[in-house]
Amino acid sequence: MEKREGEGEGEEEQVVNPWTVSAKGGGKIDYDKLIDQFGCQRIDQSLVDRIHRLTSRTPHVFLRRGVFFAHRDLNEILDAHERGEKFYLYTGRGPSSEALHLGHLIPFMFTKYLQEAFRVPLVIQLTDDEKCMWKDLTVEESQRLARENAKDIIACGFDVTRTFIFSDFDYVGGAFYKNMVKVGKCVTYNKAVGIFGFTGEDHIGKISFPPVQAVPSFPSSFPHLFGGQDNLHCLIPCAIDQDPYFRMTRDVAPRIGYQKPALIESSFFPAMQGETAKMSASDPNSAIYVTDSAKEIKNKINRYAFSGGQDSIEKHRELGANLEVDIPFKYLSFFLDDDAKLEEIRKEYGAGRMLTGEVKQLLIQVLTELVERHRRARAAVTDEMVDAFMAVRPLPNMFN
Amino acid sequence: MEKREGEGEGEEEQVVNPWTVSAKGGGKIDYDKLIDQFGCQRIDQSLVDRIHRLTSRTPHVFLRRGVFFAHRDLNEILDAHERGEKFYLYTGRGPSSEALHLGHLIPFMFTKYLQEAFRVPLVIQLTDDEKCMWKDLTVEESQRLARENAKDIIACGFDVTRTFIFSDFDYVGGAFYKNMVKVGKCVTYNKAVGIFGFTGEDHIGKISFPPVQAVPSFPSSFPHLFGGQDNLHCLIPCAIDQDPYFRMTRDVAPRIGYQKPALIESSFFPAMQGETAKMSASDPNSAIYVTDSAKEIKNKINRYAFSGGQDSIEKHRELGANLEVDIPFKYLSFFLDDDAKLEEIRKEYGAGRMLTGEVKQLLIQVLTELVERHRRARAAVTDEMVDAFMAVRPLPNMFN
Repeated sequence: MEKREGEGEGEEEQVVNPWTVSAKGGGKIDYDKLIDQFGCQRIDQSLVDRIHRLTSRTPHVFLRRGVFFAHRDLNEILDAHERGEKFYLYTGRGPSSEALHLGHLIPFMFTKYLQEAFRVPLVIQLTDDEKCMWKDLTVEESQRLARENAKDIIACGFDVTRTFIFSDFDYVGGAFYKNMVKVGKCVTYNKAVGIFGFTGEDHIGKISFPPVQAVPSFPSSFPHLFGGQDNLHCLIPCAIDQDPYFRMTRDVAPRIGYQKPALIESSFFPAMQGETAKMSASDPNSAIYVTDSAKEIKNKINRYAFSGGQDSIEKHRELGANLEVDIPFKYLSFFLDDDAKLEEIRKEYGAGRMLTGEVKQLLIQVLTELVERHRRARAAVTDEMVDAFMAVRPLPNMFN
Repeated sequence: MEKREGEGEGEEEQVVNPWTVSAKGGGKIDYDKLIDQFGCQRIDQSLVDRIHRLTSRTPHVFLRRGVFFAHRDLNEILDAHERGEKFYLYTGRGPSSEALHLGHLIPFMFTKYLQEAFRVPLVIQLTDDEKCMWKDLTVEESQRLARENAKDIIACGFDVTRTFIFSDFDYVGGAFYKNMVKVGKCVTYNKAVGIFGFTGEDHIGKISFPPVQAVPSFPSSFPHLFGGQDNLHCLIPCAIDQDPYFRMTRDVAPRIGYQKPALIESSFFPAMQGETAKMSASDPNSAIYVTDSAKEIKNKINRYAFSGGQDSIEKHRELGANLEVDIPFKYLSFFLDDDAKLEEIRKEYGAGRMLTGEVKQLLIQVLTELVERHRRARAAVTDEMVDAFMAVRPLPNMFN
């Protein structure tokens, strides 16, 4: 008998794809299982050490602490780098909202580190076409959001001499469209259903989209940047929910004579209410936004950040905080750069010698500084700078 | 019980879509039934007379003789024309082969007449992306064929000051791509299956294509031609197998704030072996190509053109020719401009006073002249002329 809808929902497997992230039984995502399901590899200490050695700088905190925890063919990219071969970075954003929250910044902060550490060019795709279709925004509104989001991305500090930001509505066409057709030819509808979970009631715009996100993986999609360098490697930093697109891309690539892109993939940034909750635009208290004031940040963290501390001070002193579920500690592990300080908190807070209030106090300080720094940087981004990053132009010094 | 494959094939309904034209039981296409199935209208004498009146010239032979036999909203286009409102023409070709046959020329000969009679601009889409996907041609080969076919199209005599020819691989992007996304959002996969007969094993490139053929119906897809004239009417001359694309387009248009395009639709040009046979690139004797020599034309018609004449002269004199199946007579009804002469043949040949040989002789003369004229015109088409027709440029005098 077929399972009826709603029946045994607690038993449902976890679902992770670009539009749905839901854990088994409403719990936490099982990342080990996800790695098995998807067929990617875990990033182990030796790989982090290798990056340390090759770049002669301390690996980014997101790498040291396992935020970026999975990869595909990252060793091949490093082999190529060691041989003196070039590669480029590709990441992106679906511009569905005006204000970004901290989770949105993570891939860009990390990509900036990779760009600096390896001195490589970067393409950033703004999928305004995708959001127009999935979120039912108008073309004009999607394009406006793409431009607003570009300002936040630029504020992360990318180097304009190595970075090309493009909106699909502006850039699809020519060599890019030719690659879309080449990819589309290699993926049957049934296969797309298997990868993305489309149904017959999904519109054909959605079914047309996967090639759009696939083809920035191929240097020939950017003739103004990589004309003739068809064997250039591509490394994609992204959250692991984007893996389906690139599994498809890697499956197709050799069939159309292209290199498979490599991937470095992050886990998800947790909501204020805990890892089993969702950050949601309809609940502004579920996330810290880069537009939040110092007062809002303080208020949100004090009121809403889920604490793993105990109910009473006495119990807390006795049992210590449950760091597995404590959001202030988790957020610090993303954004507190000082390893020794974090280790101290882990020990002291975990043993109950430090209280939740003290940890929250430190988090408020760290995030207020980060958000204030971002706000200043974003305010300095002019329309001319957006135009400069988005201009279709050669980048003659992109590998220097 | 489900019908097994191959069972009762003679009972199959006729299938007409852009990729399959097959009549019930292998017979002739029932055009009356097709009009009912598709929901379009027949072009009657009063409509032909109205066009005569409005254009102050004898309607084209394809209109007088019912080659273009069906329409959608043609009266609305004529109403608008009478009110002094403008419209534009849109037609196209899928560049799947190098050499065109006479059937391929029909929509272009007719479109040229419409362009001259109404003094209107014209966009011609070369769907190299489609053929790359359906015929499994490389991108490069599809583009080469598009350019070769453009030469044949230009040789039909279009006015470069009113005509924009574009290849999808070159032109998709920008405003055109935005319209593709708008259309794609309005068509579910199930709906596309109903219209085009896709299956789950079809690749997503095919499923992505219908919006590409839909959007030239909308003036906003051509900002360099029709910038700001979003209410301009569009009339599409095409063979009736293309109707599914434009049924879809007309269904979507009002939902995205656009005008429905009007259509004027032709029947199919018959193969040399008769109306139940197919013109096929793998059988060069099934069609007259615009590259055929005078000798080849003579030879093909004498040997292969299916005759409705009787087996013996005596029987022929007694019974006359069966004009319903006679290919020489049918071909003359397409390409012999002289109505009186055609009427004479109908009477004399139908009554058995004229023999097949004489009719074939006249057809050889008409087609040799037509092909020779086309060959000369095509030889005069330079690469610079192709570039001129395909340049993305305003056409300031397109309505004069």
